[in-house]
Amino acid sequence: MPQLNWFTEAHAASGSSIGFRTERLLHAEKTQFQNIEIYQTTDWGNLMVIDGCIMLTSRDNFLYHEMMSHPALFTHADPKRVVVIGGGDCGTLREVLRHGEVEQAVQVEIDERVTRLAEQYFSELCEANHDPRAQLLFDDGIKYMAECAPGSVDLVIVDSTDPVGPAEGLFNAKFYASCFRALGQGGILVQQSESPIAHLDLIESMRAEMRKAGFGAMRTLPFPQPCYPTGWWSCTMARKGADLAAFRERDAAGKSFATRYYNAEIHRAVLAEPEFMRAAFSE
Amino acid sequence: MPQLNWFTEAHAASGSSIGFRTERLLHAEKTQFQNIEIYQTTDWGNLMVIDGCIMLTSRDNFLYHEMMSHPALFTHADPKRVVVIGGGDCGTLREVLRHGEVEQAVQVEIDERVTRLAEQYFSELCEANHDPRAQLLFDDGIKYMAECAPGSVDLVIVDSTDPVGPAEGLFNAKFYASCFRALGQGGILVQQSESPIAHLDLIESMRAEMRKAGFGAMRTLPFPQPCYPTGWWSCTMARKGADLAAFRERDAAGKSFATRYYNAEIHRAVLAEPEFMRAAFSE
Repeated sequence: MPQLNWFTEAHAASGSSIGFRTERLLHAEKTQFQNIEIYQTTDWGNLMVIDGCIMLTSRDNFLYHEMMSHPALFTHADPKRVVVIGGGDCGTLREVLRHGEVEQAVQVEIDERVTRLAEQYFSELCEANHDPRAQLLFDDGIKYMAECAPGSVDLVIVDSTDPVGPAEGLFNAKFYASCFRALGQGGILVQQSESPIAHLDLIESMRAEMRKAGFGAMRTLPFPQPCYPTGWWSCTMARKGADLAAFRERDAAGKSFATRYYNAEIHRAVLAEPEFMRAAFSE
Repeated sequence: MPQLNWFTEAHAASGSSIGFRTERLLHAEKTQFQNIEIYQTTDWGNLMVIDGCIMLTSRDNFLYHEMMSHPALFTHADPKRVVVIGGGDCGTLREVLRHGEVEQAVQVEIDERVTRLAEQYFSELCEANHDPRAQLLFDDGIKYMAECAPGSVDLVIVDSTDPVGPAEGLFNAKFYASCFRALGQGGILVQQSESPIAHLDLIESMRAEMRKAGFGAMRTLPFPQPCYPTGWWSCTMARKGADLAAFRERDAAGKSFATRYYNAEIHRAVLAEPEFMRAAFSE
């Protein structure tokens, strides 16, 4: 019987840690951009770690991937053209492509190795990679958004690592201005926005930068995520020129695909702001 | 400068762990019932550990205490008589007593040392202990509920440790039958019900036992709780003879006291069931 160990991410900024019991290290490599490790765990399937930070487990990634995609897709009136920045594990792309009205979904991941390893160790997340509407690019997402034709995109999903290292440039007004320009009227930017309890200051600063870039409406949606620091995570939606409180409720209630967390009631529910978030965002 | 350490709870059942960076151990003792430790952390205030399991931190206990009390109190039409089983840190009692219509709140904690240590290390949670409506008993909650006069209670809150050790007898039909008998018509039982993602089978079994005891309506409310396994926790409400979907929304929206998580919108929101919970509970 192999000896069981734990992989633990000690999150210095919040003074808290999250760990999973592992059976063995399946893979480790240093890519051009970062260090990637894959572990087999006892209870959470496979675990991907980048530069010491837990990225996802087989068991709980449905929470993140569903929340990064479905609320924004069911808010936009007719999302045809979607760009995913980052998202190399392809789980967000898979959820996007469940929407029949999406005509094109471009994923722009800087590190091709993340996707190659996901194909091997999280193959269920990659099952839509050969959808004819999918385009997988391995390139710099900041550059990609800066070069997008104005008004050519309906939805930009920023599914990145934390705002340090390669992802740092994805959390400022310059990048948001590129997104704003690329989006058509009513277009939506949605970005992972860290922990509501540990990173409220970062969320406030993201929202301020989004506003500077021209976005008129913002919503931060909290959701549980056991593998991320504090177990509580969020995404922030920003919209070009319309509000974010209404969504296509009938379409969400009658969706043609299965989910495990998201449904129309959960969508309405995540629009409710916990009291401390309401206080922080209402200044 | 003192050396920093981490207190980590490795949760064997789910193969996951949660830890906090600590500055020092403030107190440790073996009581008649259990081992209690109190740490000072770097970022989460004080931390109480019982038998190796994290009970609460100063920083995140508001989530648990507000969710264990306000949804049930704002659901009952006129909650006058409240019993808290366990709850020795007194945080739930404090939230209960924020409700002006409560005439009597009895806390029945088996281990007096938990309360004495809370008075010292979590004094903010004990600020309502001298409210004339509060009664602090140090006794067996199972026995207390079994001896309650029929129909004499409006709300029972079971704020206990996990269903092993002293709290084991709080998770079965016999205990629930005592609660059912003690509650008046429309009365509510609310109990902490572990992690929706790690303990769904336990929640289903609690609900089945509650139904056996006569309760007609049940709702499991998920909420974030960074210091508990998986960072995602829940409480389950069960009602004697009426439904749990409606609540005193106007009273909740116009509440006279401050909260940090709960508000009327959050109350509506937590009534939404994530898809996998809906599937599990709809059999």
